[in-house]
Amino acid sequence: MECVPNFSEGRRAEVVEEIVRAVGQIDGVTVLDHSRDETHNRSVVTFAGNAEPVVRAATAAVGRALELIDMEQHSGAHPRIGAVDVIPFVPLGTTRIEECVDLARRFGEQIAQRFELPVYLYGEAALRPERRRLANVRRGQYEGLRDAISSDPARAPDYGPARLHPKGGAVAVGARKPLIAFNINLRTDDLPTAIKIANAIRESSGGMPAVQAMGVLLENPGSSPMAQVSTNLVDWERTGIAAVVNEVRRLAREAGTDIDHCELIGLAPTGALLDVAADALGLRDFGADQALELRLARER
Amino acid sequence: MECVPNFSEGRRAEVVEEIVRAVGQIDGVTVLDHSRDETHNRSVVTFAGNAEPVVRAATAAVGRALELIDMEQHSGAHPRIGAVDVIPFVPLGTTRIEECVDLARRFGEQIAQRFELPVYLYGEAALRPERRRLANVRRGQYEGLRDAISSDPARAPDYGPARLHPKGGAVAVGARKPLIAFNINLRTDDLPTAIKIANAIRESSGGMPAVQAMGVLLENPGSSPMAQVSTNLVDWERTGIAAVVNEVRRLAREAGTDIDHCELIGLAPTGALLDVAADALGLRDFGADQALELRLARER
Repeated sequence: MECVPNFSEGRRAEVVEEIVRAVGQIDGVTVLDHSRDETHNRSVVTFAGNAEPVVRAATAAVGRALELIDMEQHSGAHPRIGAVDVIPFVPLGTTRIEECVDLARRFGEQIAQRFELPVYLYGEAALRPERRRLANVRRGQYEGLRDAISSDPARAPDYGPARLHPKGGAVAVGARKPLIAFNINLRTDDLPTAIKIANAIRESSGGMPAVQAMGVLLENPGSSPMAQVSTNLVDWERTGIAAVVNEVRRLAREAGTDIDHCELIGLAPTGALLDVAADALGLRDFGADQALELRLARER
Repeated sequence: MECVPNFSEGRRAEVVEEIVRAVGQIDGVTVLDHSRDETHNRSVVTFAGNAEPVVRAATAAVGRALELIDMEQHSGAHPRIGAVDVIPFVPLGTTRIEECVDLARRFGEQIAQRFELPVYLYGEAALRPERRRLANVRRGQYEGLRDAISSDPARAPDYGPARLHPKGGAVAVGARKPLIAFNINLRTDDLPTAIKIANAIRESSGGMPAVQAMGVLLENPGSSPMAQVSTNLVDWERTGIAAVVNEVRRLAREAGTDIDHCELIGLAPTGALLDVAADALGLRDFGADQALELRLARER
């Protein structure tokens, strides 16, 4: 499985490196990526491995972050409730989301006890339905939660004390499916067209299930502006890349334009890309275990 | 890497199972597939792992086959020169073909000595250019090679004695890139159309590099006949699946028909399928290491 913790520190590179080092020291864990954003004052570390080493690495990361980050000193553009703001566990390969839900809950209980840190379960791991949405858990942010955590029973943590950790605040621990960040660039600079298409495909306005989308205008120096439909696919087994691209192509053509090219941001599950190949080829009887390296990884 | 030895036994299931067991007992080796053909009286075992365990497993398979198969008793439709007829080593993932060439040569020398078995190097591992083609190595088959191996210097083995192994004959050991067996079914029952397209795309008649193709008519009980372009892609990094399908589609449309659907036979390198996805989506700046499980397998 994969773990993608977000930390409320994006300006001091050495702090992020310390956290990455704490993760990388655990045997059986591979650090896949880490990135740091100065405006958001926030970092994201992506690592993967089997359940046990992933939990050990996540625990090490929480420990280090609580030592190095002080929420009393923190400001940034991104909503947050703690030094380690959010810790999602994500199934990879043949791991099921249920295993990540179990793990998130056990891990949440452990770190609450060990670090006296209030833990909120969110996403698929949520114990209260209103906490499935991370935005509900983060309402009022670190500053707002300071009072609410003890005074409002609806804001009591799932595990740990009903008061913020002195420097570390609180943390949201959860499980979610892998997310695909995928952009579709149109052969037009007409932003309203991209916005209209984004509105038509996104779930929140009645479009395709498990699709988030927005229209943006890309303005890069040295190239002409380009309208983009920027998407997050939050459950590619419900709505895959090919379905989204086919629908955006249809809507773009209706609007008198077309897709110019697409961009995959970061990593995506191999299965989601193989589905695109199978769709493009009209493959019959195709299974992801016909992909040699995947089959091999699965058998090991 | 992968190893795909072919054995001259397709009728006695227990013999093939013994060989598969010998392979599977080696730590670090995964048996991906095995199949047995009664008409050809021949079996194929596919296994994979790192270089060292793969060599150990291939050696174990040769030893077991020499004990259990007697070429003096063998008949079958498929050309062959020995109990273990051919042993190709195939690069997977980030392994380079050169590593497989090295390994095939070292392995060939070892089994020649250990089993007093004449070894011919073929494919990319060939030491004589005329032995790159397996058909040249197998000319005259087991029966014809019995005299030629000692009397004709051009047929002397690369390693081992210039006489056949008493029951095991000789073996061809080589290295080749992964082969993709890929069929394209047309919306017509007109065999000449499939033959014409196959002729146009295959390398041997001046078509696309590293493409083998033939036209066949599929006649399955219960469904109407369908013309098929059956292809082998022997170097997908030179000519990939998408290029072949796009060209077949163009030629099919010229002939007043179209592609109905495609079939991938057995396993294919994941990279070859990701290329199809990238082509279909018009992905910019896409690399196979954006596929999560592949990236993870590579980092381990």
